[in-house]
Amino acid sequence: MSSALIGIIMGSDSDLPVMEQAVEILNEMEIPYELTIVSAHRTPDRMVEYSKSAYARGLKVIIAGAGGAAHLPGMVASQTTLPVIGVPIKSSNSIDGWDSILSILQMPNGIPVATVALNAAKNAGILAARMLSPFSEEITKKLEQFRKVNEIKVLQAVEKVKKRFPNDYDE
Amino acid sequence: MSSALIGIIMGSDSDLPVMEQAVEILNEMEIPYELTIVSAHRTPDRMVEYSKSAYARGLKVIIAGAGGAAHLPGMVASQTTLPVIGVPIKSSNSIDGWDSILSILQMPNGIPVATVALNAAKNAGILAARMLSPFSEEITKKLEQFRKVNEIKVLQAVEKVKKRFPNDYDE
Amino acid sequence: MSSALIGIIMGSDSDLPVMEQAVEILNEMEIPYELTIVSAHRTPDRMVEYSKSAYARGLKVIIAGAGGAAHLPGMVASQTTLPVIGVPIKSSNSIDGWDSILSILQMPNGIPVATVALNAAKNAGILAARMLSPFSEEITKKLEQFRKVNEIKVLQAVEKVKKRFPNDYDE
Amino acid sequence: MSSALIGIIMGSDSDLPVMEQAVEILNEMEIPYELTIVSAHRTPDRMVEYSKSAYARGLKVIIAGAGGAAHLPGMVASQTTLPVIGVPIKSSNSIDGWDSILSILQMPNGIPVATVALNAAKNAGILAARMLSPFSEEITKKLEQFRKVNEIKVLQAVEKVKKRFPNDYDE
Amino acid sequence: MSSALIGIIMGSDSDLPVMEQAVEILNEMEIPYELTIVSAHRTPDRMVEYSKSAYARGLKVIIAGAGGAAHLPGMVASQTTLPVIGVPIKSSNSIDGWDSILSILQMPNGIPVATVALNAAKNAGILAARMLSPFSEEITKKLEQFRKVNEIKVLQAVEKVKKRFPNDYDE
Amino acid sequence: MSSALIGIIMGSDSDLPVMEQAVEILNEMEIPYELTIVSAHRTPDRMVEYSKSAYARGLKVIIAGAGGAAHLPGMVASQTTLPVIGVPIKSSNSIDGWDSILSILQMPNGIPVATVALNAAKNAGILAARMLSPFSEEITKKLEQFRKVNEIKVLQAVEKVKKRFPNDYDE
Amino acid sequence: MSSALIGIIMGSDSDLPVMEQAVEILNEMEIPYELTIVSAHRTPDRMVEYSKSAYARGLKVIIAGAGGAAHLPGMVASQTTLPVIGVPIKSSNSIDGWDSILSILQMPNGIPVATVALNAAKNAGILAARMLSPFSEEITKKLEQFRKVNEIKVLQAVEKVKKRFPNDYDE
Amino acid sequence: MSSALIGIIMGSDSDLPVMEQAVEILNEMEIPYELTIVSAHRTPDRMVEYSKSAYARGLKVIIAGAGGAAHLPGMVASQTTLPVIGVPIKSSNSIDGWDSILSILQMPNGIPVATVALNAAKNAGILAARMLSPFSEEITKKLEQFRKVNEIKVLQAVEKVKKRFPNDYDE
Repeated sequence: MSSALIGIIMGSDSDLPVMEQAVEILNEMEIPYELTIVSAHRTPDRMVEYSKSAYARGLKVIIAGAGGAAHLPGMVASQTTLPVIGVPIKSSNSIDGWDSILSILQMPNGIPVATVALNAAKNAGILAARMLSPFSEEITKKLEQFRKVNEIKVLQAVEKVKKRFPNDYDE
Repeated sequence: MSSALIGIIMGSDSDLPVMEQAVEILNEMEIPYELTIVSAHRTPDRMVEYSKSAYARGLKVIIAGAGGAAHLPGMVASQTTLPVIGVPIKSSNSIDGWDSILSILQMPNGIPVATVALNAAKNAGILAARMLSPFSEEITKKLEQFRKVNEIKVLQAVEKVKKRFPNDYDE
Repeated sequence: MSSALIGIIMGSDSDLPVMEQAVEILNEMEIPYELTIVSAHRTPDRMVEYSKSAYARGLKVIIAGAGGAAHLPGMVASQTTLPVIGVPIKSSNSIDGWDSILSILQMPNGIPVATVALNAAKNAGILAARMLSPFSEEITKKLEQFRKVNEIKVLQAVEKVKKRFPNDYDE
Repeated sequence: MSSALIGIIMGSDSDLPVMEQAVEILNEMEIPYELTIVSAHRTPDRMVEYSKSAYARGLKVIIAGAGGAAHLPGMVASQTTLPVIGVPIKSSNSIDGWDSILSILQMPNGIPVATVALNAAKNAGILAARMLSPFSEEITKKLEQFRKVNEIKVLQAVEKVKKRFPNDYDE
Repeated sequence: MSSALIGIIMGSDSDLPVMEQAVEILNEMEIPYELTIVSAHRTPDRMVEYSKSAYARGLKVIIAGAGGAAHLPGMVASQTTLPVIGVPIKSSNSIDGWDSILSILQMPNGIPVATVALNAAKNAGILAARMLSPFSEEITKKLEQFRKVNEIKVLQAVEKVKKRFPNDYDE
Repeated sequence: MSSALIGIIMGSDSDLPVMEQAVEILNEMEIPYELTIVSAHRTPDRMVEYSKSAYARGLKVIIAGAGGAAHLPGMVASQTTLPVIGVPIKSSNSIDGWDSILSILQMPNGIPVATVALNAAKNAGILAARMLSPFSEEITKKLEQFRKVNEIKVLQAVEKVKKRFPNDYDE
Repeated sequence: MSSALIGIIMGSDSDLPVMEQAVEILNEMEIPYELTIVSAHRTPDRMVEYSKSAYARGLKVIIAGAGGAAHLPGMVASQTTLPVIGVPIKSSNSIDGWDSILSILQMPNGIPVATVALNAAKNAGILAARMLSPFSEEITKKLEQFRKVNEIKVLQAVEKVKKRFPNDYDE
Repeated sequence: MSSALIGIIMGSDSDLPVMEQAVEILNEMEIPYELTIVSAHRTPDRMVEYSKSAYARGLKVIIAGAGGAAHLPGMVASQTTLPVIGVPIKSSNSIDGWDSILSILQMPNGIPVATVALNAAKNAGILAARMLSPFSEEITKKLEQFRKVNEIKVLQAVEKVKKRFPNDYDE
């Protein structure tokens, strides 16, 4: 059994440049994950096996990225009780991303997929961390830190902008 | 082994009112079919079994109707070499049918689905008949008759309209 | 402190008919929840207070429904580390639901919202249960049962349909 | 009489870079085809002649690609009983492909066109092969091989990815 | 030879309730017209004959209404040098009219169709009158009268509204 | 000279049921307005006159409602220096309101229109009041009261909901 | 008085690269035209003057190009009885051309604009020629020639393609 | 207290290249402004403080730019009585700008945002000036001058074009 808490899968290695953003944020938060390629259409048996074994292997969340008529997140969700986060990818065969979004988001009642924004693999990683956070003080702290850092980055941008526009808002 | 040449499946019996139009046209053309419910999300094992046995059971074409994030046609296509006709259904949970269309139409390279118009189960039946027609003189004749009848219906409408608008076009 | 694990909020009591579907499924699964009205635009202070106290009050997931320019889910997510599930509602002032979906789904990097399908409050409830399931054998069992029941419902529909279309698929 | 089983046509030679993908896959599967330019709007007589003679010339399937207000696939379908596969092309005068898709897909009842994804000429070729497969063991084998190869490509990508992400999923 | 100046055609008699609005305005302006049913898909030969004979029969403009994958206006335009006005119809098989609009409007270079608003058969009639007007003082006068009447109708509405909202704008 | 501060205009009296919501909120806030019909297309001279005289007549804001290819708000804005609020109306000839929205919102640089949501005449009235508020303590107070009332309405809904869902959130 | 039969106007000289295609085709057909810049929003008086004098100056058709919230074609149409052809332009401030199309196409009943495809100024020129053709044998001949040339271009492409794909369709 | 009349805020410094166009036009019109970064999601407290203090600090209008699920303009509007102008930005994470537009425009009744075109920060600046103009003769004059300059620019383009197309319209 792997020690991974989060499983990251995608339909093709061409999705990797997008999905690596999930990896980076999980590395940053030190949450163990596993990553692999699982294609709903080209390796349906592998998809079934992956989905059905995920809970027993200790995964707590699955992140699945796919583009076009994106069936991977929904099909995985239909074969596990774990929460599945779907990342719609604006792949080369996608119509501006609309097909990716709608075929992941609009799941029928009974089989939800937690959909994030187009190409938002980073947010998928953060959402996975949030799902774990009520059960881990450590991850909660990491998320609070992350929020603090983001706030600070805005305030630094405020300072930078203030130099160019001196008549800036001053609290 | 069933004598059916065409398999008609749909994700839910709420799709039946639309999908029965495929049944009617196949009855009219006397092409044997079978019909059942197969849900990609709620009965994934049944879907695999149905798809994998279709060729051996003698089916020549599969018609699959589904709405919303409609994965059934594409997932069936990924597990058979038979042609799969997808009928996007404007179900109650669909966004004006756009989700149904895009999640059936925009299949990745390698796994095509022959998509017809929104709710066009009748056209799915006719398309199935067309696929068989080069291998069956009988079906070809039926399709020619069908076309003739449609032409006659237009000409009858022409006559009807002529009575109300006497200054009608006269060839 | 409430014993609720899941907080259900919505922007207006006109959203209640949709959001009650989340209540029903959580009742069915016996997962304690709380429900109230919180408006991002009309009660911004209440929203801040609700979001900031959620973790300490013992909530593990927040479900937020809103329609039109739907800011509630994203604004709540920005003030808690808990996972927030967004339910886009096709309210009377919404353009076929597109505004509701896009203003919930397309959150910037850093602040994800787990978006479900349009009006899919039932799926929001199931997704919340899935998030808890890796930490509760009881909820996992409930979800497995729920899936079993859904499968059985399909098989019952299969039987019903078989009576009308005798040349049905028989495994 | 030509020995071609599949006819590939397109509205303009500017569509050739897309439509050649159908040629390649048919070459790969050793299915004889013919290819030419037929414009619904600029050579309507040629279109009629092509469509009406297709069956007698031994064609089993017609693949028709067109962009913008794409009338070729539907108009050909109206003059033959053969199945017509429509390839919506994102040509320079198309609005992100939406016009191409809708004017091919949304055919009225009676005259179906088997529509594939935007620019998906390769899938059109595979779909044509699928239509022939129930009547040809050889083509069925080719399609099974093709599927196997696609599966293997995914598994090779799995191995490649495993090297970069050692904590990969291991069945 | 008919004395009609304007030919009104439509794909099906189900389009008549919309297309009669063109009839009414032409009656009002006393411009002779002919009206009939011509289906691009179900009576392609009739369509060719109609289009090719239109000029010789004395028509000056053709108005063609159609819905869904609406090929009639464009196909007629490809076989005549007369101006063709296309009326996109929101028929029962149309996706909110988008398919009707795009498959009429987005004609390739060389074969224009003068497209009017969705269901705007009245405007098609007026546009036909406008096309004739530079060559007919009588029609020009009718169009000026028509504009005057429309202006008066607005001013009457102004008066009506003034009674309910006394603090009305008074020039 | 009228004492009206806000001018409310619309293209047709069929827009009145929507535009009356602007009247109601201005009545409620006791801000003097005038209301009339001005059609960009049917009374272009009246439109010019209305726009050019608005400033001199003492108006501070113009609210203009229109549907379909909605030119009134933009054309008025091009002939006055006053701020113009555009209300896109989902009229019977509009495509789900998209045409109304885009033809009001997407004004070229130089001539802005302050666009509000589809059919949101009430918000147009409130926006007009907000524009006046920095120059009127009275209107500022009215707006603050209005916000307070809206907040109280939410809190009353909270109480109502609490009775049905006793395990409600209690601050 | 100018000898021009067709007036070509546009909202800005940035529209010239598109609109010159109308010039080219009219030059080719030797139909006299005039061309100028008229902005609905920046020179409303000039627009009124242009529109109101067009008929008396001998124009038979007006071609008007504009992008974004494109009011020029409709506003001109409201002030003349001549037919107005609208060219929606995908300008830099346009949302993929949708705003340009809808604000030109969706004119209210009474004031039609003959809309052509996005950026299709060439088709606007041809449409103008078609409008004149029933009143000019010369222009009719030019249009027939033009059609013939287009047909020949397709047949030349057929020959070119035949060399690369020898198994070509041969009538 | 700052002397700024107009506050310009944006969610991120990546929005600055767009939002600077508001700065330029306000500089040109010599209307004092302040500019800073305020993120609804990353600095919610700062946003509350900014909004609540705006009126007292002497601001008359707030211009807020944001992209994607753009909550900043609406959330600011919910905490001030000042008019808020929303600039939808086509940021890198936006779906062709549709999400930015809809999440700013479609505000619920009670909390309007004055939305301008996609990326139209310049128009936001002009709209702000228009709001002030009925209370400032100076700004009214600047706006009239600005309009005059724009008219002259069109007339200069007219002259430029006339040289290339001598058969130009000559009033």
